[in-house]
Amino acid sequence: MEFFFQVKKVDQIYQELFLLPPLPKEEVALLRAVGRFLAEDVIAPEDLPPFARSTMDGYAVRAQDVFGARESEPVILRLKGDIPMGVVPNFQLETGETARIATGGMLPPGADAVVMVEYTQEIGDLVEITRPVAPGENLLQRGEDIRAGEILLPKGTKLQAGQIGLLAQAGLTHVKVCSPPKVAIISTGDELVPPQDSPSLAQVRDTNSYSLAAGVLEAGGEPLLLGIVPDREEDLSQALNKGLIEAHVVLISGGSSVGTRDFTLRCIKRLPGARLLCHGVALRPGKPTIVAQVGPQIVFGLPGQMASALLVFYVLVRPYLLHLQGAKVRDIALPKIKARATRNIPSPLGREDYVRVRLKEDKDSGFLAEPIFRPSGLISSMAQAHGLLRIPETSEGVYQGEEIDVFLLP
Amino acid sequence: MEFFFQVKKVDQIYQELFLLPPLPKEEVALLRAVGRFLAEDVIAPEDLPPFARSTMDGYAVRAQDVFGARESEPVILRLKGDIPMGVVPNFQLETGETARIATGGMLPPGADAVVMVEYTQEIGDLVEITRPVAPGENLLQRGEDIRAGEILLPKGTKLQAGQIGLLAQAGLTHVKVCSPPKVAIISTGDELVPPQDSPSLAQVRDTNSYSLAAGVLEAGGEPLLLGIVPDREEDLSQALNKGLIEAHVVLISGGSSVGTRDFTLRCIKRLPGARLLCHGVALRPGKPTIVAQVGPQIVFGLPGQMASALLVFYVLVRPYLLHLQGAKVRDIALPKIKARATRNIPSPLGREDYVRVRLKEDKDSGFLAEPIFRPSGLISSMAQAHGLLRIPETSEGVYQGEEIDVFLLP
Repeated sequence: MEFFFQVKKVDQIYQELFLLPPLPKEEVALLRAVGRFLAEDVIAPEDLPPFARSTMDGYAVRAQDVFGARESEPVILRLKGDIPMGVVPNFQLETGETARIATGGMLPPGADAVVMVEYTQEIGDLVEITRPVAPGENLLQRGEDIRAGEILLPKGTKLQAGQIGLLAQAGLTHVKVCSPPKVAIISTGDELVPPQDSPSLAQVRDTNSYSLAAGVLEAGGEPLLLGIVPDREEDLSQALNKGLIEAHVVLISGGSSVGTRDFTLRCIKRLPGARLLCHGVALRPGKPTIVAQVGPQIVFGLPGQMASALLVFYVLVRPYLLHLQGAKVRDIALPKIKARATRNIPSPLGREDYVRVRLKEDKDSGFLAEPIFRPSGLISSMAQAHGLLRIPETSEGVYQGEEIDVFLLP
Repeated sequence: MEFFFQVKKVDQIYQELFLLPPLPKEEVALLRAVGRFLAEDVIAPEDLPPFARSTMDGYAVRAQDVFGARESEPVILRLKGDIPMGVVPNFQLETGETARIATGGMLPPGADAVVMVEYTQEIGDLVEITRPVAPGENLLQRGEDIRAGEILLPKGTKLQAGQIGLLAQAGLTHVKVCSPPKVAIISTGDELVPPQDSPSLAQVRDTNSYSLAAGVLEAGGEPLLLGIVPDREEDLSQALNKGLIEAHVVLISGGSSVGTRDFTLRCIKRLPGARLLCHGVALRPGKPTIVAQVGPQIVFGLPGQMASALLVFYVLVRPYLLHLQGAKVRDIALPKIKARATRNIPSPLGREDYVRVRLKEDKDSGFLAEPIFRPSGLISSMAQAHGLLRIPETSEGVYQGEEIDVFLLP
């Protein structure tokens, strides 16, 4: 077991984390799968639609019969019957014939197009058609949507309303999705008391357990609060072991700075087979972050200050939790928009810098990003932010008016 | 009771819907409130932070003592003590004195700044300081974040990780949020069978119950599936009554077109005190939509085709469900980005047109929006879309390369 004191770039850490496999799949009912990710390709079991159907209320016709039809010179067809939704027509359309058809109705044999009701007039058992249609117009062919055997939805697809509807249409009432990750959360610090307690002077309430748990919930995981651990190596070691038994991922906040009480690192070193992915991330705020792999599990040592801990959560932990759920790269990152900085924002070279911003929409110039310049110890700054402005490590900052990427906070 | 056959604009419908009050508030534990909206302003019960605290590991000083300190001419102070986190210092700092202090440690009386550990050296009970600090540097003053009595978070705030952390820090373990809306969902149509059934030829599986339920879940509501109702006025009337008893909102899909079987409208008309907000929306797809108010409840009659029904859900129903939960305008709309159309997209004047698009990111020109030109009857088109391109009613379309608004689908 080797341990380097190694500051890594965010991308390097992603590379290592995303190599790890997603969680095992489980089969769940359709409405339990909302917001989750397909663990395997779903194959269409049959053609969709299963028969040629009208997309309009109107009249089924043979397109060649109504060629050249117009207001002043309508084509007259004989009404052969009525095709309501859900009923198989019991006749065939011959030359010169038409049939009333509802939206979704099944085309009768012989028909190859539908004329909208607006361009028709029924007179007894005759129908005047005042517009031509091309073959295939106003209908869906059998299998036009999806053919049996094709991939209906690929592995990694996020299941929201549109996808759930498509699965229901294909008759799939259960799907295989990746299991949600269980995430153990430990707060360390002699000065911490639970939120329900009144801290004595110099003590502070444990914030990170709750903000991180909220983040885990939003990311589709299941938080497991292991509570506050005092600054003693034995206690943290015990809590960490418990976390590794009960959860897929362990978050420890506090105790990861290169300060006087670097217990997290020492506790990780004691775990058999532990591999340190990084100690220090080229990230601001959030540099004193530890990421370690213990068998198939990951332990994140996060900074103690809430805004820093939460920032590292959004930049490193949340993407990993989504990866564990089988999400595609597209869905792993926070949604990103372009915005213009409302003022100069300096930034040190060599570190990815995340600045909390508030967004305003301007009629002319799109989104404006107003940086919140407050110490990262101020917990309100994260609560007031709409997004995170990312300044790459190769940049010394952004100028007022410059167009930049802003990641939207959930 | 008057009924107009009235096509309204989307904005007009919003105006009417948003006049209705949000749902009653309920008190829930902090982690049950994630993703929900504050039903009232939350007032800070105490100053945050409750005492002046260091934001760095270093040495507490009187700033005037270290004025002019530099590498070549350090100031020497006497080490008076050590202030760990969570401990109230039992001494006062006099001129010429300093104390070791940890990040988060409480400043001793007399101190007004902190020198970072990097600019100090301890030699016995003396400390060399090689950089000056300004008063207030590297510390948070008591109440600098929030003062007791100020609004900690305003009514309507969406509670995510940052806000949950702030509430925990203030000692608030329970908050008042608006109740989640219960949404009854009814699918109408003789041709429909449940997804688990094998439809005979000409029948189709009920898709809307599931896609709409998924949309309701994503929007924070509780779906209540009332199943498939055949095309008989009595049956639909019964289902609608059941929905109005058990839910805050009723969604009926199918049966709202100006076609042959306009049961939804007739059933609504039979309800005492029903008021039609619109019959028809200047929206494409989704024109044959009904919105009616029955006392404090809303009934939406949605088109039968899945893609149209879901579009109306995203444009009208989802915003209303978020309004019912007390969301602010900012959080009611889908997140919006700017993108460039990859080709010309014509659009009729006089209707808000929503085109399903796939998004690609281009290094140089930002996001590109590729329209999915498929019939709205194709259910796969909604499952493949990343976003909705909105073409205002005053526009005849967009040109290739034009910058446009795209709403991101969840």
